[in-house]
Amino acid sequence: MASRRQLKLGAFMRPVSIHTGAWRYPGAAPDANFNFAHLKRFAQTLEEAKFDAFFMADHLALLNMPMEALKRSHTATSFEPFTLLSALAAVTERIGLVATASTTFDQPFHIARRFASLDHISGGRAGWNIVTTSNPDAALNFGLDDHVPHDERYVRAREFYDVVTGLWDSWADDAFVRDAQSGIYFDPDRLHVLDHKGAHLSVRGPLHIARPVQGWPVIVQAGASEPGRRLAAETAEVVFAAHGSLAEGQAFYADVKGRMAAAGRPRDALKILPGAFVVVGETDAEARAKRARLDSLVHYDSALASLSVALGHDASRFDPDAPLPEIPETNASRSGRERAIALARRENLTVRQLAQRLGGYAGLAFVGTPRTIADGMEEWLETEGSDGFNVMFPDLPGGLDDFVRTVVPELQDRGLFRRAYDGTTLRDHLGLARPPNRFFPDPA
Amino acid sequence: MASRRQLKLGAFMRPVSIHTGAWRYPGAAPDANFNFAHLKRFAQTLEEAKFDAFFMADHLALLNMPMEALKRSHTATSFEPFTLLSALAAVTERIGLVATASTTFDQPFHIARRFASLDHISGGRAGWNIVTTSNPDAALNFGLDDHVPHDERYVRAREFYDVVTGLWDSWADDAFVRDAQSGIYFDPDRLHVLDHKGAHLSVRGPLHIARPVQGWPVIVQAGASEPGRRLAAETAEVVFAAHGSLAEGQAFYADVKGRMAAAGRPRDALKILPGAFVVVGETDAEARAKRARLDSLVHYDSALASLSVALGHDASRFDPDAPLPEIPETNASRSGRERAIALARRENLTVRQLAQRLGGYAGLAFVGTPRTIADGMEEWLETEGSDGFNVMFPDLPGGLDDFVRTVVPELQDRGLFRRAYDGTTLRDHLGLARPPNRFFPDPA
Repeated sequence: MASRRQLKLGAFMRPVSIHTGAWRYPGAAPDANFNFAHLKRFAQTLEEAKFDAFFMADHLALLNMPMEALKRSHTATSFEPFTLLSALAAVTERIGLVATASTTFDQPFHIARRFASLDHISGGRAGWNIVTTSNPDAALNFGLDDHVPHDERYVRAREFYDVVTGLWDSWADDAFVRDAQSGIYFDPDRLHVLDHKGAHLSVRGPLHIARPVQGWPVIVQAGASEPGRRLAAETAEVVFAAHGSLAEGQAFYADVKGRMAAAGRPRDALKILPGAFVVVGETDAEARAKRARLDSLVHYDSALASLSVALGHDASRFDPDAPLPEIPETNASRSGRERAIALARRENLTVRQLAQRLGGYAGLAFVGTPRTIADGMEEWLETEGSDGFNVMFPDLPGGLDDFVRTVVPELQDRGLFRRAYDGTTLRDHLGLARPPNRFFPDPA
Repeated sequence: MASRRQLKLGAFMRPVSIHTGAWRYPGAAPDANFNFAHLKRFAQTLEEAKFDAFFMADHLALLNMPMEALKRSHTATSFEPFTLLSALAAVTERIGLVATASTTFDQPFHIARRFASLDHISGGRAGWNIVTTSNPDAALNFGLDDHVPHDERYVRAREFYDVVTGLWDSWADDAFVRDAQSGIYFDPDRLHVLDHKGAHLSVRGPLHIARPVQGWPVIVQAGASEPGRRLAAETAEVVFAAHGSLAEGQAFYADVKGRMAAAGRPRDALKILPGAFVVVGETDAEARAKRARLDSLVHYDSALASLSVALGHDASRFDPDAPLPEIPETNASRSGRERAIALARRENLTVRQLAQRLGGYAGLAFVGTPRTIADGMEEWLETEGSDGFNVMFPDLPGGLDDFVRTVVPELQDRGLFRRAYDGTTLRDHLGLARPPNRFFPDPA
C-alpha cells in the first residue's frame, strides 16, 4: 500500500474556527483568538496526526460586514500570521506552517525576509500563501483611498513574486564558509545583488539572511479567476481551491494542470487542495445533526444578510420556519441563487436553516462517519478532483480531535495518508523539489 | 535591602554577538544566526537570571561597509526580529521581548498589529524599539532612491507613534463580552475607529486584534539627537543610550529626565539604559586579556577602516605594532579623533590593538571581576548615570554564561537586582504603568 498515491492534508485555521457560530458550540474555546495556549495545543495535535501543514487564514481589516452581524463574529480579533506561526514553530517539530501575506499591502523585502526567517527558525517548514487582498477596507488601513483594481493587483503580484524569490536566491547555499582560521565568514562571489527595477517595484537587495532551508518556502495560492489561474499555473506549488462539487473540482484540476504543461512545469509540481469542511459523527445522521446544531448558533439576523445576498432578493419577509418560497428571477448572480435554492430543496431546509447554513459555512463539506468521509476524500483523489484537502474543522478543539482520532486512522488504514513523516521539511511532506538557485545553479 | 532602587537589565543581542570578531572566539556558536536552538538557549538562560528583556538589534539592509570588511562579519545573515521573538515567546515565560521596527520603511497598521499579536502571544512581554532607520542602503530595498532626511523621519516617526498607539486603543479592555447565550461576541460601543488623516499617514482602523495585554507594548527608543531626545522625552518608556563615560551618561540622564518634566511626565515613567559591553574574568587582568584576545580576532584590514574613520586620517601606513604616532589635525570629527587617541594612550595600545578595539566594540565597557563590574554598575545607578543597562556580551554563550553565573549573583547580593520576577509583564519588570485607553478612559 505504501506506493499508493496519498492525500495531502492541510488544516485551514482560524483560532476559534472557520464557522461563525462555532464560538457558541459546547466545548468551544471562544477566547482562542487571544490565547496562544489553545493554538499550541491545536498545532501539536495536528502534528501528532501527521498533517502536512497548519494554514493560517488572514485578512488586513475587520471583515467587511454590517455591525449587527460583525458583533456576533469571533473574527473581529485574531493573531497576526507571522507572529503566530513563528511561535508555533518553536513548539512543533515537523508540521508545515503556511502564512498568508499580501502582495498589495506589503513590501517584497519584508515578505522575503520574514518567510526566510520563519523557514530557518522552523527548519524548513514555511509556506507563503500569496494573496492580492480583495477587501476594499484593507486599502484604507494602508493610506490608499481606492482599492487597487483586480488586474493591476495580479500584475504587481507576479512582479512581487519574482522579487521575493530573487531575494531568497541572494546567497548560494555554500556562501557562508565561516572559516574561523582565516576569518572569512562568507564568500562574496557567492552573493548576488538583485538590483530589481520593474514596473511596480524597485528593490536592490541582497537579502541579509541566508537562503531558506527549503531554497524557497512553498508557494501557495488561492485565486480562481483567469489571472489567478494563470499565476498559479506559472508559480504555485499548492493551490487552495474552493469548489462546491466534485465535477467543479475535476474541471478546475484539469484546467490548472493543463496550464502547467503549457508553462513547462510537471503536473506533480503543484498540489491542488480544495477547502473541505468536515463534520464527523458515529453515524451519518449524528454528523448531520451536529452540523445542524452548529448552524443553529448562527444568529438569524446575520444569516439573513447572507441569504439575501445569495438570492439577490430581500429574504427578511419570508417565514423563517417555512420552506423557501419561489423566488422571482433577479439580476443577481444566477449560480449563487441556483445553488442556494438547490441546497434548500435537496436537504429540505427551512428558510432559517438555509440562511444559517449560508451564514456558517456553505462550501464543500464532508459530513458523516469516518468511513463516509474517507470514501468522499478517496473519490476526489482517485478521480482527479484534488490532491488532498485543506481541512476546516467545524468546532475547536472538538471537531479537530474527532477528525484526528477517527478519520485519520481510517485514511491510514486505506493507505491514503502517512503514518509517519518521511522528511523534515514542508517540501518533503508535499513531495515538492527544492528549487535551484537561479543565480547559483551549481549544486553547493 | 528590598526597597533599594534596583538595576533594570536588558540583553542587547545579535545572534552571534555584538562584537565582530566573536564568531572566531573559542566556544562560539558561529552559526547562531541560522540556528534557532542557540537563541532559545540564550533566552532561557537570561530568563533564569531574571533579566528584564531580550532586546533584538535590527537593520534593514546589509551593513554598509566595504566588502573586504563585510565578508569577515557574521552580521551578513540574521533572523528577522518579529519571527525570532515570537518563537522565543513560545519557549520562555517571563522575560520581556523587545523588537526593533522602523517608522520609515513600514506601515503603522502592520506594526501595531504585529506588536499587539506578540504581546498577546507572550502574555504581555512585548516592547517596540522605535527606529527611524539611518542606513541609506535600506531606502534602496524599499523602492526609494533617496534616503528620507533626518528631520522629516522624526516628524513621520512622531505621527507614526500616534497612529500605532491609537490603533492599539481600538478596543476597550472589556469590549469582548463573548456571551454565548445571546450570541454577542463584542460590544460595538466599545470599539473605536481611528480614522487618522495626517501629514504623512492616513489610516482608518480599527485594528482587528484586541488591545494588547500591556495596553501598549513598552515604547523603546535610542535616538540621541535633538529631535531624538525630544521624541524620547515625550513618548519613550525606555531609552537605549550610548555613552562612553559616566559624565556623559549623567549629562544625558539629567537632560532627558528634565525634558520629561517639561512634557508633563513623571521621571520614573522612563528608564535610561545605556548599552554596556561586559567582559568578566576571575581577575581584572584576566578580563582584560580576554578582551584583548577577542579584539585580536578582528581582522586588521577591517579594523584599519574603523581606525582611519575615527582619526580622519589614512592609518594604513602606520606601523601596526608600534604606538600610535602623532596625528595631524584634520577636518574630521574632533571628538572621535580625540577619543581614539586618548584610548590608545590610556591603555598603551599599539596601532593594531587600537584599530581592533574600534573594529570590535569601542563604547562603554565594564571589564573585570564580578565585583569590579558590579561596582561600576552600582556607581552609574547611584549617581544618576542610568537606571540600568542594556548588556552586550562579548561572546556567546561563554560571555553570557559568565555574566549570569557570576555578575548577577553579585548584583543580587548587593540588593541591586531581583532574585525573582514580581510580575508577569515587561511593564511589571520595568515598573511602568499600564497606559489608559485614550478612547475608553473608564476602567474596564
